[in-house]
Amino acid sequence: MSDTPDSAVQTVRTYIDQHREAFLDDLAEWLRIPSVSAQPDHAPDVRRSAEWLAAKLRETGFPVTETWETPGAPAVFAEWPSGDPDAPTVLVYGHHDVQPAAREDGWDTEPFEPVIRGNRLYARGAADDKGQVLFHTLGVRAHLALTGRGAPAVNLKLLVEGEEESGSPHFRALVEERRERLAADVVFVSDTGMWSETTPTVCTGMRGLADCEIELYGPDQDIHSGSFGGAVPNPAMAAARLAAALHDENERVTIPGFYDDIVELTEAERALIAELPFDEASWLTTAKSHATLGEAGYSTLERVWARPTAEVNGIGGGYQGPGGKTIVPSSARLKLSFRLVAGQDPDKIELAVREWVEARVPAGIRHRTVFGGATRPCLTPLDHPALRSVVRAMGRAFDGARILFTREGGSGPSADLQDVLAAPVLFLGISVPSDGWHAPNEKVELDLLLKGVETTAHLWGDLSAALR
Amino acid sequence: MSDTPDSAVQTVRTYIDQHREAFLDDLAEWLRIPSVSAQPDHAPDVRRSAEWLAAKLRETGFPVTETWETPGAPAVFAEWPSGDPDAPTVLVYGHHDVQPAAREDGWDTEPFEPVIRGNRLYARGAADDKGQVLFHTLGVRAHLALTGRGAPAVNLKLLVEGEEESGSPHFRALVEERRERLAADVVFVSDTGMWSETTPTVCTGMRGLADCEIELYGPDQDIHSGSFGGAVPNPAMAAARLAAALHDENERVTIPGFYDDIVELTEAERALIAELPFDEASWLTTAKSHATLGEAGYSTLERVWARPTAEVNGIGGGYQGPGGKTIVPSSARLKLSFRLVAGQDPDKIELAVREWVEARVPAGIRHRTVFGGATRPCLTPLDHPALRSVVRAMGRAFDGARILFTREGGSGPSADLQDVLAAPVLFLGISVPSDGWHAPNEKVELDLLLKGVETTAHLWGDLSAALR
Repeated sequence: MSDTPDSAVQTVRTYIDQHREAFLDDLAEWLRIPSVSAQPDHAPDVRRSAEWLAAKLRETGFPVTETWETPGAPAVFAEWPSGDPDAPTVLVYGHHDVQPAAREDGWDTEPFEPVIRGNRLYARGAADDKGQVLFHTLGVRAHLALTGRGAPAVNLKLLVEGEEESGSPHFRALVEERRERLAADVVFVSDTGMWSETTPTVCTGMRGLADCEIELYGPDQDIHSGSFGGAVPNPAMAAARLAAALHDENERVTIPGFYDDIVELTEAERALIAELPFDEASWLTTAKSHATLGEAGYSTLERVWARPTAEVNGIGGGYQGPGGKTIVPSSARLKLSFRLVAGQDPDKIELAVREWVEARVPAGIRHRTVFGGATRPCLTPLDHPALRSVVRAMGRAFDGARILFTREGGSGPSADLQDVLAAPVLFLGISVPSDGWHAPNEKVELDLLLKGVETTAHLWGDLSAALR
Repeated sequence: MSDTPDSAVQTVRTYIDQHREAFLDDLAEWLRIPSVSAQPDHAPDVRRSAEWLAAKLRETGFPVTETWETPGAPAVFAEWPSGDPDAPTVLVYGHHDVQPAAREDGWDTEPFEPVIRGNRLYARGAADDKGQVLFHTLGVRAHLALTGRGAPAVNLKLLVEGEEESGSPHFRALVEERRERLAADVVFVSDTGMWSETTPTVCTGMRGLADCEIELYGPDQDIHSGSFGGAVPNPAMAAARLAAALHDENERVTIPGFYDDIVELTEAERALIAELPFDEASWLTTAKSHATLGEAGYSTLERVWARPTAEVNGIGGGYQGPGGKTIVPSSARLKLSFRLVAGQDPDKIELAVREWVEARVPAGIRHRTVFGGATRPCLTPLDHPALRSVVRAMGRAFDGARILFTREGGSGPSADLQDVLAAPVLFLGISVPSDGWHAPNEKVELDLLLKGVETTAHLWGDLSAALR
């Protein structure tokens, strides 16, 4: 960087101001393409969206832009080599498909006709995820303007998939197949958010997920609870007892070994989480819940972000219609999911759950446990050099504001990138909770969107130095 | 009785032999009427069945025979006063409606075309319950032949309902409405069975029943288990924990006060139950179950007949479709039923359950507990004089065989008779487990049917003396 920090901030802002209108025009053009991956009649739109993006990235200067076919919707890949043989490689992940939307769902305006009101741009995909993908075009140009280089200070790669809103069914296979092309020293996921408009944060990890269904079989058919009740095992009771035995009185999971390998929160991390302006009442409103309940010794945010769970997603057995039916039911089912945190291996958890079930199901009840595909947790340590770079770059974009850290309680395909590419995953998101992902009147805050542009303008140079 | 016991037995058998053919012809004629109460298109047949029975009872000699209308199918009432002002009054209960049956369900012959093969008469209703109702016609005539009286030694009343196979929806109201006409010193239910062809038994009681549904409400809608899981209460988990907390490690019900008032089995009763030739493997086959499980310290028969239960008839909450769904569900439901034994008051049990639920549901989960109509347990002590009469009368019919005692684990409208009429209920059944109630190829064992006739022929005189 040839400028002092202050003049660098000014240089970037001036560049962005000059190109802001054109950037927003581009975004509006892209948002008009209803790239709804879940609706088959929109398949041509998803393809058009990919082609639009590839063309835009070419126009931005990426020398390599490709459309990668999958058995479903196409992904877009772009690459801009640094030219510096020692430069680190960065992969940015995003998606160009969007959730379904229709005016009659409660939108105030047409969801695929972007409207700017004040500081907000309303359209399906404005925040999730087209806005957060597209800011990288202006971001890399601002970075070049700042540095005076003809190519980014890092080898910059973008992978923008087209099926994220449909569960990314072909994503892992695509990443495995293109492993060499995607190789990177660090991955930035641009598909997340910040704590709030006034509290800039970086997300440092997501929980993993393992889920299973336990089927329990007792009598060969429903039997009369008068003739036989009280003398034979009941599979609905067995299901309930399994579910109830998952936790102890401190809401800690009782499965042996469940907590063995986890990366515990450090005191520093706990202190940083405690700095966030968390309001339990408003969190409960968002959760549509009426009380908190969780593992003893941890705050609500710690429970959701940094502690593993065993959750009953569904339970069913016996008669569920109106009134009563005096039976001992023949079978029952229990659907469990386990959110995992860094250090937990889904394969080990599966084994532990299987052994635990095996040991607890009573004689006379047959059982079958079926696990679905697992997602690994991901976590970037607070002292990782790439994370320090992000904090510095965001600090410039946000005028020196203190940057705090969040995590994500959910699980996502980013873990596939971490797994397959063996690279740390960081989350570079500028969305805020009020943006209305998947909801009517989705919007993006324009000043935050441009803060994302600013952040990347500063980030690539900082990172290029930090990762050597 | 003017005869010695031996000659009395002979007198009754001779009378029965002489009238056996006519009796079986009558039974066959009645069985040809498809009085299926559950099928609306058979309503005229149910009415025809009632009229047929009323006419047959008139022909038998009952001076009072009436058809009692209900909002559903009609019942038949008959009364034959003894003429002796000190004679006790006996009410016999049975039903004239039958379960549905069709040749294609697996019947070897037409279900409503009775066929005799060897010692068996096959037809829908042969055992349940037309055979067991009709033997009272020949029984009372044999009793008159034995005693030489023109009227029975007891005031004999019969109440034969037409909706038992449809859950007796109007029975209790009918009994309450006709309370004075039905008043009796003892009630005999002729709608049960014996242990086996070779082990004659009397049933001395039925369990009662209380059932409820517990609805549990957590988040206002299903919420994301990643964003919120581990930090809010889950109603499906709450349902499972309630169900699991119903029993301790000895499978004893944990609800405070649940066992407080029960009439415990005496050592004599336990010894008599232990005398029954019980084979656990064949019982399990009948129960279509693969192991026994129940309250510690009691045998399987004791558990089913004489111990109360808390059973999960149904449980449901959250996602139950294929695959997984990572939610904290919004609601769950738990259907419980409690089989009750003598001494337990359904109202007290309901209160105890409600208090127990109230104390256990966690903050943040709203709940609603709805109880259905309860059935009281009934039990006749082994030393009750009417029961001793039955044992003596059966002893004659079964050639001095030892008469043992059973109970019934189920619950039935007989408890309404006990309740409303404040009279002890005894069970006078000659059916055996192989009779195939509610199944294809229902049959009755003819020699046992005629043992029922013999029993009542001896019973009314014995009882008339015993109950003074």
